[in-house]
Amino acid sequence: MLNKINRQWCVAAKPLGAVKESDFCLKESATPNINADEFLVRSKYLSVAPVMRRYMIDGAGIEKPLDIGDVMIGRGVGEIIKSNNPSWPVGTIVQGKLGWQDLSVHNGAADSLMFKVVQRAVPISTALGVLGMTGFTAYCALKDIGKPKKGEVAVVSGAMGGVGTIAVQVARLMGCRVIGIAGGAQKCAMLKDKLGVDDTIDYKTEDVSKALSTIAPEGVDIFFDNVGGSILDGVLEHINRGARVISCGRISQYLTDKPYALKNWHAIGANRAVMQGFFVYDYHPMFAEAEHVMAGWIEKGALTYQEDVLEGLQAMPKALIRLYEGKNIGKQVVSIA
Amino acid sequence: MLNKINRQWCVAAKPLGAVKESDFCLKESATPNINADEFLVRSKYLSVAPVMRRYMIDGAGIEKPLDIGDVMIGRGVGEIIKSNNPSWPVGTIVQGKLGWQDLSVHNGAADSLMFKVVQRAVPISTALGVLGMTGFTAYCALKDIGKPKKGEVAVVSGAMGGVGTIAVQVARLMGCRVIGIAGGAQKCAMLKDKLGVDDTIDYKTEDVSKALSTIAPEGVDIFFDNVGGSILDGVLEHINRGARVISCGRISQYLTDKPYALKNWHAIGANRAVMQGFFVYDYHPMFAEAEHVMAGWIEKGALTYQEDVLEGLQAMPKALIRLYEGKNIGKQVVSIA
Repeated sequence: MLNKINRQWCVAAKPLGAVKESDFCLKESATPNINADEFLVRSKYLSVAPVMRRYMIDGAGIEKPLDIGDVMIGRGVGEIIKSNNPSWPVGTIVQGKLGWQDLSVHNGAADSLMFKVVQRAVPISTALGVLGMTGFTAYCALKDIGKPKKGEVAVVSGAMGGVGTIAVQVARLMGCRVIGIAGGAQKCAMLKDKLGVDDTIDYKTEDVSKALSTIAPEGVDIFFDNVGGSILDGVLEHINRGARVISCGRISQYLTDKPYALKNWHAIGANRAVMQGFFVYDYHPMFAEAEHVMAGWIEKGALTYQEDVLEGLQAMPKALIRLYEGKNIGKQVVSIA
Repeated sequence: MLNKINRQWCVAAKPLGAVKESDFCLKESATPNINADEFLVRSKYLSVAPVMRRYMIDGAGIEKPLDIGDVMIGRGVGEIIKSNNPSWPVGTIVQGKLGWQDLSVHNGAADSLMFKVVQRAVPISTALGVLGMTGFTAYCALKDIGKPKKGEVAVVSGAMGGVGTIAVQVARLMGCRVIGIAGGAQKCAMLKDKLGVDDTIDYKTEDVSKALSTIAPEGVDIFFDNVGGSILDGVLEHINRGARVISCGRISQYLTDKPYALKNWHAIGANRAVMQGFFVYDYHPMFAEAEHVMAGWIEKGALTYQEDVLEGLQAMPKALIRLYEGKNIGKQVVSIA
């Protein structure tokens, strides 16, 4: 059955500071028509990610900045409900850039990167998490920049976030001793109990640098940084010669116009270390490997995934805001009824 | 003829802030004896480098910190004047870690990295500059971390220093458009007139970031940084996607206990750029190539070298202090009578 109405979350205002629900407005449109070779996808799960605030302001990665009134962009998993393209029959489950909306039109060509069929025998929502860009981010960044060697110490910030929950496990599976940095006792307990992390730092109650002096006196070889700011500064005090710092996300900085000034940048040079920015779409050729390896780990029970699911399209702004508030436990997705 | 006396510059005090002449003391010892397989080298040229202050304080690279009373370490070129080793006959010109002294004993084995015969048909002092660690630093860092592509924009800070004067030329010879940052009109004029630099920024009178907006509106692909601090911050505002920042030296920070806090560190992550620390001894396997290629450029007249020579062993502390004052024009060496 077709939705008669397509609900679409659009940009109502460029966020000033924190993202607010009033920065978005819900528009209702008619079901879009499909032309030759096109098909209509009904969203089933939509993803939110910290970078989305930047889409609204100045663009990021491959995305140009959105204008007021534009439909929010983002990835999702959906079902083909109408098709003029025999390669993409009705009933197929797909993932791609569906946008924050019920319905979207596609043609299956390279119109959007990584538009593809979801085939794995795990819940389809994982195509937005462990077996999607979130998981590929963890895997590709660790493998290509982190270059883990057995017995090395890997620190992950934002460790209970979407990327972090995968990164801590992949680092462990690649042979590292893993330290997770997260906010709050509950998240730290989950890191140890559910994700096999060796040690944790609760940045809300502990000084990151002091904590590392105690739990990592041998220093840090890999830092998978999703946070930036003072947490990056604290870890830089402890990096070893030849350390690799993966600059994957900077969520501490997304809500401020006054950037944190980094004291320990000189540790990069002094330790002949590397700090490198990571953007997942640059790693397209490694996605098939990442998916294959991680699906194998899931099947063996070596890798678990954490999803934090809100219900209903109306929850999209709230889901995004939860990320900046650090409320999500694992990958934040929204289930579209 | 043998010196009867070996004059040796020793550490008198750990520098607090700026290095002062009183941080050193000149000791006189007898000519050292040589045992079986050993030989005696009389220094002819000695090198100074910004990193030496750190040798006196907390060590750097492969060097442990010196104690009070220790002879200062450093590279030099000298002549074998007495030998018990037939592989190293009297009269041979060698380069290696001779220390801040007239005479030193060696055995030619791997007792010190890069102890070797000086053979090139250019002045032997160049074994401390363009055809020594200084030149190898410029070449290896640009080739391995900078990875220059034809037409890219390369910025070099400390451009009229020992490494900088080579780096600007090597970047040009590798196909880049080159911008040199130096202090004062005289240095900037020399960069253009003698070293073929395309544009210059005088950091004493110009704002680095504003200047780059004008002379490099296309952005910066490679930053060869010998300075750090506010100059690094200014350049980071202009790095392109995929830029390479070579963190080679941080002379702006060596004399302060209050490190500069870097505002634009996030540009590394946001631009999927790399900032990597460089230490020349890590690149030993590339030295022969660097020497061969650069000697070829010198013979063709494509590469010139700048030396700033003080006379006499007594000038060693002054020579080092000149570096931190930015007074040297090119590679600072001391000629030992």
